[in-house]
Amino acid sequence: MSLDLPLRPELRGLSPYGAPQLDVPVLLNVNENPYPPSAALVDDVATSVAQAAAGLNRYPDRDALPLREDLAEYLARESGVRLPAGCIWAANGSNEVMLHLLQAFGGPGRTALSFAPTYSMYPEYARDTCTDWVAARREEDFSLDPGRAVAAVAEHAPAVVLLPSPNNPTGTALPASTLLAVLDAARQVPGGCVVVVDEAYAEFRREGTPSALELLEDHPHLAVSRTMSKAFGLAGARVGYLAASTEVVDALQVVRLPYHLSAVTQAVARAALRHTGSLMEQVASLRSERDRTVAWLRDRGLQAVDSDANFVLFGVLPDRVAVWQGLLDRGVLVRQTGPEGWLRVSIGTPAEMTAFREALVEVAGL
Amino acid sequence: MSLDLPLRPELRGLSPYGAPQLDVPVLLNVNENPYPPSAALVDDVATSVAQAAAGLNRYPDRDALPLREDLAEYLARESGVRLPAGCIWAANGSNEVMLHLLQAFGGPGRTALSFAPTYSMYPEYARDTCTDWVAARREEDFSLDPGRAVAAVAEHAPAVVLLPSPNNPTGTALPASTLLAVLDAARQVPGGCVVVVDEAYAEFRREGTPSALELLEDHPHLAVSRTMSKAFGLAGARVGYLAASTEVVDALQVVRLPYHLSAVTQAVARAALRHTGSLMEQVASLRSERDRTVAWLRDRGLQAVDSDANFVLFGVLPDRVAVWQGLLDRGVLVRQTGPEGWLRVSIGTPAEMTAFREALVEVAGL
Repeated sequence: MSLDLPLRPELRGLSPYGAPQLDVPVLLNVNENPYPPSAALVDDVATSVAQAAAGLNRYPDRDALPLREDLAEYLARESGVRLPAGCIWAANGSNEVMLHLLQAFGGPGRTALSFAPTYSMYPEYARDTCTDWVAARREEDFSLDPGRAVAAVAEHAPAVVLLPSPNNPTGTALPASTLLAVLDAARQVPGGCVVVVDEAYAEFRREGTPSALELLEDHPHLAVSRTMSKAFGLAGARVGYLAASTEVVDALQVVRLPYHLSAVTQAVARAALRHTGSLMEQVASLRSERDRTVAWLRDRGLQAVDSDANFVLFGVLPDRVAVWQGLLDRGVLVRQTGPEGWLRVSIGTPAEMTAFREALVEVAGL
Repeated sequence: MSLDLPLRPELRGLSPYGAPQLDVPVLLNVNENPYPPSAALVDDVATSVAQAAAGLNRYPDRDALPLREDLAEYLARESGVRLPAGCIWAANGSNEVMLHLLQAFGGPGRTALSFAPTYSMYPEYARDTCTDWVAARREEDFSLDPGRAVAAVAEHAPAVVLLPSPNNPTGTALPASTLLAVLDAARQVPGGCVVVVDEAYAEFRREGTPSALELLEDHPHLAVSRTMSKAFGLAGARVGYLAASTEVVDALQVVRLPYHLSAVTQAVARAALRHTGSLMEQVASLRSERDRTVAWLRDRGLQAVDSDANFVLFGVLPDRVAVWQGLLDRGVLVRQTGPEGWLRVSIGTPAEMTAFREALVEVAGL
């Protein structure tokens, strides 16, 4: 090109984010739900969308209150925590929820803090909102030490703390005591600090692992984000949501684009929420398959991190690129992510996990 | 609340943007297409979405190339300008296209320039991306004087110039000669400057009004945004798009959220693009109705701005709030926007425009 474009300096030379979208038989790389929507759900989606389509010449309901009411109802059933619809926010994927959070509370001169290894998109959300990004460290076992976490909050005085629970790519849940310590530390940050617990995979948590939703009542600076991409098996529909105080939700409404959530997206999400029962049975089966995968990996002499998610981080592999490629050559796509020597495998169907195990035995000589 | 939230100072006390969503019989306030999708289109949408729904457990095609190819094909038919799919970008409404543009090329220390009166969302896009906002002035007849526009570009050295054509809320098209002058001036801006022509209403332009698409080939710093909300009657589906050089599109891909466009949205948009023929017949009828409305308003002694859009700005009313309220009392919702004394009416069906005229005669005593 004969001409300079005013591309922001921090974006020069970058490629768009995203795992390779390869066409292989066993896709275990982006933590999708392996079960396609049931015929009953597909029918309900088609009927609901046809109804919405008849009025598509009009802008969608800007506040999406019926959807937010349905989401509140679902959270009450899932976690026992009942919230009014005004404490729920919905957007095009939880990544848009995160964008709204950083637009409202981050931005120039503000810092977002998380603890690595963690979700690789967080620094990109920070970059795209011109928020300074600080990644403190997790412990060797990928847990968060409460004392060190509190010290990091005090040191960096972040406007936003991002705490995934379970963490991606390690699967590590956040104990309530650690979260409470961080919430207390956040109260001391001059100017205020919002603590965001990213519960994208919360439905997969093990018995006894709490949801941060339980702490919302006493902590107006806490926000809990969720998604329909994982447990609901709706990654293609792009629906994320958040539960927080009305003060937080009101702030997100100021920065959201008007009519950000299409009438079709609202209809699809509401249809899926009518099928919660059968979807949650699949979640239970995925949790069992995950626990079996962890046990099998350990039996074979590998390390596998305790997981409250629908994926397992395993290692340590002397050459993870070779293992990743060997699996791919056998039709199994996993993800190169996390610290050197580790790979992440999403939990698929029993047949897919058999394919993964057989391929891994061959490739890694287990 | 007992606690400070770190809400950005520029957002404090603000309410979310948006025209009132009132339930009245004649909605002529947000430039929607009054014609609902045909039964054939609704059927096609339902079938296409049911197909997409069967795979919703997987993330959508991140690059949406088939949709971008269909959009390129549509633009070739509509304007005669044929572009490769790599020169097309698609997002959740043209407001998300604008957000991507300002994230890539605007931001802290950068300025976005437009000419008022113009679309009231532009300063909000700037605010939400921390871009400085400068509104120079249009002439008394709402046109853009090429000399003054060039001087404003030289004075403010913007990274982004936003030029709607036709302009909202005035309906004023941008002559090619004026756009060429601004494009030349933009080349002189140190660091570069992207000129965005917002053609949200382009399909409604009058015979002989050009599209800025024709200038893309020679101007890699030009971007032309469009939407399916207006001519396609798909405001509820949230599909906007942009045509530009691959350099511009590549930059937007870096800042977009991964998987920003749902598989359902892609399916709905592609279905609507298969029905272009019948949709464009409605556009022709709306253009006639618009021209009749302009002529009628002038016959009644009011001013009405020449419009290349699906709306008409009319005035000057001694008390526009009273007229707006009087119309609303009669079941007709128009928009209070533009300079003091003016109102904007969207073009509805012939029956809706009759209701508007009858109500206005009563309210304004024409």
